[in-house]
Amino acid sequence: MSAYSTVPVPPTAIRFDTRNLTLEPAGPTLVRRMSDLDGLFADREAWQAAIDDGDPVVYTVASSLVPETDRELPQSITTIHPGTTAGEFWMTKGHQHPEHQGEIYLGLRGTGGLLMFDGTETRYLEMTPDTIGYIPPGWAHRSINTGDEPYSFLAVYPGGAGHDYGWVLEHGLGKRVYAGRSGPDLRPFGS
Amino acid sequence: MSAYSTVPVPPTAIRFDTRNLTLEPAGPTLVRRMSDLDGLFADREAWQAAIDDGDPVVYTVASSLVPETDRELPQSITTIHPGTTAGEFWMTKGHQHPEHQGEIYLGLRGTGGLLMFDGTETRYLEMTPDTIGYIPPGWAHRSINTGDEPYSFLAVYPGGAGHDYGWVLEHGLGKRVYAGRSGPDLRPFGS
Repeated sequence: MSAYSTVPVPPTAIRFDTRNLTLEPAGPTLVRRMSDLDGLFADREAWQAAIDDGDPVVYTVASSLVPETDRELPQSITTIHPGTTAGEFWMTKGHQHPEHQGEIYLGLRGTGGLLMFDGTETRYLEMTPDTIGYIPPGWAHRSINTGDEPYSFLAVYPGGAGHDYGWVLEHGLGKRVYAGRSGPDLRPFGS
Repeated sequence: MSAYSTVPVPPTAIRFDTRNLTLEPAGPTLVRRMSDLDGLFADREAWQAAIDDGDPVVYTVASSLVPETDRELPQSITTIHPGTTAGEFWMTKGHQHPEHQGEIYLGLRGTGGLLMFDGTETRYLEMTPDTIGYIPPGWAHRSINTGDEPYSFLAVYPGGAGHDYGWVLEHGLGKRVYAGRSGPDLRPFGS
């Protein structure tokens, strides 16, 4: 089974396979099904119906061997499948780093959005292949698939930053991203 | 003129141009000529002769707008030109991070080597496009062009890690990398 390396991590050549969207040597792969996304979508009934209708995989996160520990610089490839739930694009849970640190997302395939919220202001970046989305320290962030095919990106982030998912459930991301007639339609979070 | 952003850096979409090897919005570009590389090559006379013969650019480092400050995650593209000085491949100065933190190099074009030294042990990774070289915290590192064309890679590193060039001049990188008959020839540093 793939697993994170133990610390200290040795100097390692990691194969970045942009065709198969893997990092080798591999660490764990996280699979998020609809049932893992409690509280994310505005329409709770539509969310429950999607679970009852097969509980689809919404996204996966495939990590390299580098662990999420202080001073290390882990990487992962996230793939969000295309879809909407009551018009709201499929998305990641989103998180805040309890230890405020910067992070980058590099678009690899498909089209997406990178939604960021610092508790007051919201920013939205369009993500396509060869776009680096820069997430400054202190900005909670979520990725969204805004296209018809899987949207994949490489993340690089300080291993000691941590992941606070509860912050996003409590504070939201400022906006919700719906499928509009001519692209993403950003609506206030409370709507 | 291109310059680093001031802190706080805004959420930013950075164009990662793998054809022109630029990051936009751009920060400063560093240019290292042969005369900037005092003490690197084993053969000091050959080094001086190369300076007298036009002082060529050995490598450039093109940064994005994200500054090298604590908690930020800057990126840069390094391009090392092909060449040897008395048989020793052209290389970067190399550095240690005074604040030990991990870093990644992603091979973009050409072929190179990533030499690492923790003060006792030396490790050497071959770098080609789509290889991520993982530099664990505490390993000094240097890049080398081992091919006939420019070698380019993307670096992502914690902005607070710092750069100590003197450590490498004092301790070396454990090995020197020469052009051998069938590829890189690693020799003891003191040779």
